[in-house]
Amino acid sequence: MPNEFDFIDWVRTRQSPSDRVILPAGDDLAILSGVPDALLVGIDQILDGVHFDSATHSPAAIGRKAMNRNLSDCAAMACLPLAAVVSLAMPRDLPATFAKELYEGMRTAGEKLGCAIVGGDTGAWAGKLAISVAILGRSDGVTPVRRSGAHAGDLVYVTGALGGSILARHMDFTPRIDEARALVSAHRITAMIDLSDGLSRDLAHICRESGVGAVIDADSVPVHADVARLPASNRTPLEHALHDGEDYELCFTSPDEVPSATRIGRIVSGHEIMLAQHGRKSPLVPLGFEHAF
Amino acid sequence: MPNEFDFIDWVRTRQSPSDRVILPAGDDLAILSGVPDALLVGIDQILDGVHFDSATHSPAAIGRKAMNRNLSDCAAMACLPLAAVVSLAMPRDLPATFAKELYEGMRTAGEKLGCAIVGGDTGAWAGKLAISVAILGRSDGVTPVRRSGAHAGDLVYVTGALGGSILARHMDFTPRIDEARALVSAHRITAMIDLSDGLSRDLAHICRESGVGAVIDADSVPVHADVARLPASNRTPLEHALHDGEDYELCFTSPDEVPSATRIGRIVSGHEIMLAQHGRKSPLVPLGFEHAF
Repeated sequence: MPNEFDFIDWVRTRQSPSDRVILPAGDDLAILSGVPDALLVGIDQILDGVHFDSATHSPAAIGRKAMNRNLSDCAAMACLPLAAVVSLAMPRDLPATFAKELYEGMRTAGEKLGCAIVGGDTGAWAGKLAISVAILGRSDGVTPVRRSGAHAGDLVYVTGALGGSILARHMDFTPRIDEARALVSAHRITAMIDLSDGLSRDLAHICRESGVGAVIDADSVPVHADVARLPASNRTPLEHALHDGEDYELCFTSPDEVPSATRIGRIVSGHEIMLAQHGRKSPLVPLGFEHAF
Repeated sequence: MPNEFDFIDWVRTRQSPSDRVILPAGDDLAILSGVPDALLVGIDQILDGVHFDSATHSPAAIGRKAMNRNLSDCAAMACLPLAAVVSLAMPRDLPATFAKELYEGMRTAGEKLGCAIVGGDTGAWAGKLAISVAILGRSDGVTPVRRSGAHAGDLVYVTGALGGSILARHMDFTPRIDEARALVSAHRITAMIDLSDGLSRDLAHICRESGVGAVIDADSVPVHADVARLPASNRTPLEHALHDGEDYELCFTSPDEVPSATRIGRIVSGHEIMLAQHGRKSPLVPLGFEHAF
């Protein structure tokens, strides 16, 4: 299996233009025209041993995560969820209660943010547990925020604090839909993404799509209290905040002062992403996250 | 893992009513309101060892099947495909060429019927190959045909011939979208489904959703030529046509004479589905399909 990001690059080269598709693959959600307001659609899967561990995590927590990751994609574009469809590939030896609790975890998480599960497909197989959720979103009066709108001079912000999500938060987080809607109603938000792969990697998505660079101020990056409780590693607390991933907070750019979020840097021309620390700058290399269950 | 159909029953009892959802889980696709014309959405997965065999089937054929099963769901409701999103769970040892060929199989199948892939999620894992496709459909001037509209006195029809799809057709079929659109434009189609689980089981879905029974005339069921080429089994040719599954033809009901399809029986009041053969009737028990790769 090739690197996921290379594969998506290749997929994008294979897509045909369509009048009906405003924004095809490559952002958090696709935008379709031909509906009142914009209709948005995306899909996200979680896999046993990659995004959760079926031997450790409860079925309800697994289901909740499957739904919340998609709701976090809605937050990333400042849209409201409309409906979801789900597919479950279930090991044959899992009991019925497991499937029900998993579904309840999905349903409850969806209902909290107004997202009904409107369809699905369940199959038993000799493989491991895999869950896909496809989500529809509606813009509801707000222009969806893409990754591609950042300009040199914009400020870079994050909501919340980052790092150490592996302790527990990666399984139990609140998709930032309310925060995203509040942000776009009060400020000019030029680009936004949810932090699933890690700040270093997700910021690189914004910069690449926008054709810009960035300078991140190391002292400004909010490190989550969980980082101090991690087992000893060869990463510094800052490195955990920059690279751990699965924070499911928002990273966005704006020319405005945004008091409700933490300013961590600024967008610059060019394409380099630099980390400013101790009075000097060094390249901020995306490391992404790797779970170790 | 419990029986899939029991699980869906249970899921349906857990759903909350919503103004935005005209038709929730339980049909081929969900129907959403709040869009011009109806927007339809559904999801369908294919799993290694269940719906295909990655050691035997080409990646392009696997991708084609993943897309075509969803397009067949569009046909079942007489809607036109709008767009699809896909998730791929890929074994880590699969080469990049496999993923690309699989995507090309999906993309080509979609484009043949006007369906663009507008998003996706790809992940590598220690598990087996699983592919989910979520599809959006648009009614485009036609009221979507549900499973629930059959009335006593309607005639039961199928397109094409049935049975023996395991030889090759289950991997390479044409979703009957054109046929479905032609049918609804020329006739009163009261209920429709695509034949994925086998005529006996899929007709039972129509009857249950419509609150009716049916009598199928054994001599009228069109047996596919593939059945004669199957290895010897304990099933008769008729039983193959009734139960094999994965024909991806349409089964529908109508009060009209429909010359372009094969009339195989009629809808009756009650809830029993009977097979009329040799001058007597016996219950037509759904057997569904089981692959043996």
